[in-house]
Amino acid sequence: MSDLLRVIPLGGLGEIGKNMMAIEYDNQMVVIDAGLMFPEYDMPGIDLVIPDYQYVVERKDKLKAILLTHGHEDHIGSLPYFLREVDAPIYSTRLTRGLVEVKLKDHKRLDGTQLVTINPGEPFTLGPFNIEAFRVCHSIPDGVGYAIETPQGILVHSGDFKFDNQPVDGNLTDFGRLAGYGDRNVLMLMSDSTNAEHEGKTPSEAIIAGTFDQVFEVARGRIIVSTFASNISRIQQVVNAAVKHGRKVGVLGRSMVENVKMAQALGYLKAPEGTLVSLDTLETLPRHEVAIVCTGSQGEPTSVLVRMANRDHRQFAVEAGDTVILSATPIPGNEELVHRTINNLFRLGADVLYHQLLDVHVSGHGYKDDQRMMINLLKPKHFMPIHGEYRHLVLHGRLAEDLDVDQVFVVENGHVLEFEHGKGQQRGRIPGGYVFVDGVSIGEIDEVVLRDRHHLANDGFVVVVLAIDKQSGELAQEPDILTRGFIYSRDAGDLIEEAKQRIVKLSHAGMRVENAQNRIKEVVGQFFYERTKRRPMVLPLVIEV
Amino acid sequence: MSDLLRVIPLGGLGEIGKNMMAIEYDNQMVVIDAGLMFPEYDMPGIDLVIPDYQYVVERKDKLKAILLTHGHEDHIGSLPYFLREVDAPIYSTRLTRGLVEVKLKDHKRLDGTQLVTINPGEPFTLGPFNIEAFRVCHSIPDGVGYAIETPQGILVHSGDFKFDNQPVDGNLTDFGRLAGYGDRNVLMLMSDSTNAEHEGKTPSEAIIAGTFDQVFEVARGRIIVSTFASNISRIQQVVNAAVKHGRKVGVLGRSMVENVKMAQALGYLKAPEGTLVSLDTLETLPRHEVAIVCTGSQGEPTSVLVRMANRDHRQFAVEAGDTVILSATPIPGNEELVHRTINNLFRLGADVLYHQLLDVHVSGHGYKDDQRMMINLLKPKHFMPIHGEYRHLVLHGRLAEDLDVDQVFVVENGHVLEFEHGKGQQRGRIPGGYVFVDGVSIGEIDEVVLRDRHHLANDGFVVVVLAIDKQSGELAQEPDILTRGFIYSRDAGDLIEEAKQRIVKLSHAGMRVENAQNRIKEVVGQFFYERTKRRPMVLPLVIEV
Repeated sequence: MSDLLRVIPLGGLGEIGKNMMAIEYDNQMVVIDAGLMFPEYDMPGIDLVIPDYQYVVERKDKLKAILLTHGHEDHIGSLPYFLREVDAPIYSTRLTRGLVEVKLKDHKRLDGTQLVTINPGEPFTLGPFNIEAFRVCHSIPDGVGYAIETPQGILVHSGDFKFDNQPVDGNLTDFGRLAGYGDRNVLMLMSDSTNAEHEGKTPSEAIIAGTFDQVFEVARGRIIVSTFASNISRIQQVVNAAVKHGRKVGVLGRSMVENVKMAQALGYLKAPEGTLVSLDTLETLPRHEVAIVCTGSQGEPTSVLVRMANRDHRQFAVEAGDTVILSATPIPGNEELVHRTINNLFRLGADVLYHQLLDVHVSGHGYKDDQRMMINLLKPKHFMPIHGEYRHLVLHGRLAEDLDVDQVFVVENGHVLEFEHGKGQQRGRIPGGYVFVDGVSIGEIDEVVLRDRHHLANDGFVVVVLAIDKQSGELAQEPDILTRGFIYSRDAGDLIEEAKQRIVKLSHAGMRVENAQNRIKEVVGQFFYERTKRRPMVLPLVIEV
Repeated sequence: MSDLLRVIPLGGLGEIGKNMMAIEYDNQMVVIDAGLMFPEYDMPGIDLVIPDYQYVVERKDKLKAILLTHGHEDHIGSLPYFLREVDAPIYSTRLTRGLVEVKLKDHKRLDGTQLVTINPGEPFTLGPFNIEAFRVCHSIPDGVGYAIETPQGILVHSGDFKFDNQPVDGNLTDFGRLAGYGDRNVLMLMSDSTNAEHEGKTPSEAIIAGTFDQVFEVARGRIIVSTFASNISRIQQVVNAAVKHGRKVGVLGRSMVENVKMAQALGYLKAPEGTLVSLDTLETLPRHEVAIVCTGSQGEPTSVLVRMANRDHRQFAVEAGDTVILSATPIPGNEELVHRTINNLFRLGADVLYHQLLDVHVSGHGYKDDQRMMINLLKPKHFMPIHGEYRHLVLHGRLAEDLDVDQVFVVENGHVLEFEHGKGQQRGRIPGGYVFVDGVSIGEIDEVVLRDRHHLANDGFVVVVLAIDKQSGELAQEPDILTRGFIYSRDAGDLIEEAKQRIVKLSHAGMRVENAQNRIKEVVGQFFYERTKRRPMVLPLVIEV
């Protein structure tokens, strides 16, 4: 038996270790989280991005379990794909399990998957690992981190966390238990770096109650609150405000409806009988008795709020007098979509409240002082900032150094951290970034396809079809040109015609068939560039007839 | 002579009246600004977006002048295009004129264009308009607004402004003159709405000096500051800090080099002899004596900073020990690019300072209290919020209502505001949005081309070429299939082969030539969707041989 302990952040797009972490000891492995990422602006047509977990798949016999920290997409979303490749039980708290069940059912992967419900503070053993989940506050209930006791010491994974002294569900981040680990031997802390740019302490989710109270107090028309479908605490706060101010609540948006149903069934969302009503009931109520919670806080084009803003929702139309709250901050990259949605809601005459105007959102991730508190409680020997882009990791790493942590590892996805006799060092790198999901294929779309998509998006294409007589080697007929995304076709007739004449001239000049493709590409490309200063993708196709 | 006064915001992408405003009276017209916009995320391949100024072009004989408020791209950038269509003198302050000259020279439009230098406070007359420019503080020196006296009262256009009590160039927004107009008869104020979401007063540009001082005090390696090429005040502050701390300054990036040269020649940028040095000189200096100002604060892919971050700059490489300051906030839509740049600079070992960490940027636009001050000084009868997205206009309009302005017009681009006998009302709408510039063409790229580009970007295309025998109507040979951006071609062989067989089968089933295109489109599209869950653009081309 080798005393080698390995920790590997696997997967994350820009962010490191966000979507999957692997921990290996003595030929046995656990994986923490299996999330997905959304494509960035320069990945057109890509549906999803998932971790590059090939390393785990190649060692799937070693895999003891998948431990989940909480039920957000970026932590559970790649399970349906991962489970095609590996067969391991999934450990999670109750609400997280509920969300996983909804997801796996959707993908027809629920049957045959072993789900294990764990309770924070109740230890369990997997191979060489003695594991205990501990409660953390986050923007979804039932979040945990993990303390994983190994023969070399305790590894602590913070999950996504903040310290909230007034959490909506009453469950505090478990200071006591964390301090307890700290009094033993924490070999390494892997901790959430998301807010490493923000000094101070993250405000409590409870401050939202005050904002909602103010808004519900003065609003005369309907109140529409949009937030993440998984933000059960926020939905709870809408329900609380509605109850207090005599409104009924309708839930709109498929994912939100499902989550609400499940969270209510499991007791994570509490609403007095008759508070949550159907859309039909909602329509019979006077406007000042109506509240709606819906998706769309990120300006997602198919979400309920965006469809409402575009007067495109089949049942509800936003009207003058309605109050709309976007209870979220835009994720970087989504700003334009969110701003357009807000503009359009204002155009419909609604009063719109959003994060720049009012405290309608607080972060679920700890600011720097929460990060310091985590380190101070655990007193780790080694520290690995995770869950953040590289800059967050650097800043979080500096913060840990200021607190006299012995050694800080700022790593990238796929970097392998090895511990021997309680001493860690970075050693080598495996593929551990991400792969694309596009339609049904995983990983098939590569950089070449993406590069082509960029080219097509920017300048379109021109296909030139040349029929050449097999016998004579002459043009059998006038060339055909097919173009899209390049030029407005109504104006392009002359230009296309002229290009054809160039090609005819070229072939009269005695072009050999084997050179034809390259010559056409060159000449046609050059011609269009001169005339338009654009460079469409030119693709010649020579057929012999 | 009709007593009809018209005000029309022309052009702006999302923002209203930002890039051009037209003012018309008695068959005579002036235009304020002629700026450009950068394309949004869903306008692939578009180079620039310019105002839809067709209304002005159709009335070009009426056009007396183009009045410029300041030298930023979004206020002067469409001049080279606009001047192809109209012939009118351009009025501006000295620095703005300098920037316009650089631009027009670039576009070979300087000859034949009449440029008139104006001084704030010195009135001039254009047809029925008595006009006076007044100084405003902004993030570029020599900015002005305009007071345009008409027979119905004074129209005031604020330009881009803030009230800065410690401007770097010493030029205050001209309170006194504004109060003077206010004591007469301000018919309408058109005012900058950019920061209508921000309560309070915009901080002074002077606070940057403090930040730079701190950073220059402790930095041991080179200091690299990136900002907008036109932000002469910010560049001045870098020079000031460099002088104080014994560093020389190199300027990198074509547009910045040109602006610095011009601003220095005109006396808007002051540097002691020997402070600004060439790159070759810079390379001979010890690192702690080097400061660099460069472009790239928005993560623009071809900018100096981004090339440095990607180790792609031919002369300078960022190294451990360097301090990089991004002295700007990301414009919405640029966040991902900016964040990637910061991450990469950290990866190179640099210390990176940016707006989340330090006061390295202040806005050039007034916050709500600046906006209130403008209204209180001018006491306008009517108010038109401009320079902002619709939500900013609504919020700015509310602010004006709270200050008891008689009437607020929240309008869109192309809305026509008409005054008769000093009473305004919105009347009708003209085309006044924006048009695309792509390559050498203006306005040729339309929604159809953009829609195609989106489709191509998301799923690529498949061209099917079918040669059909003229006599028999049978397939003359196996179909050809050409595809890009759809699937990774190495894996696609079988799929393409199978698609061909489907087409062959289809044609054996007796397809008539005239239906062939549609049937192929349908069958091939369906086939690929079933297999890949993707919908490439399918384009059949039937040729008869």
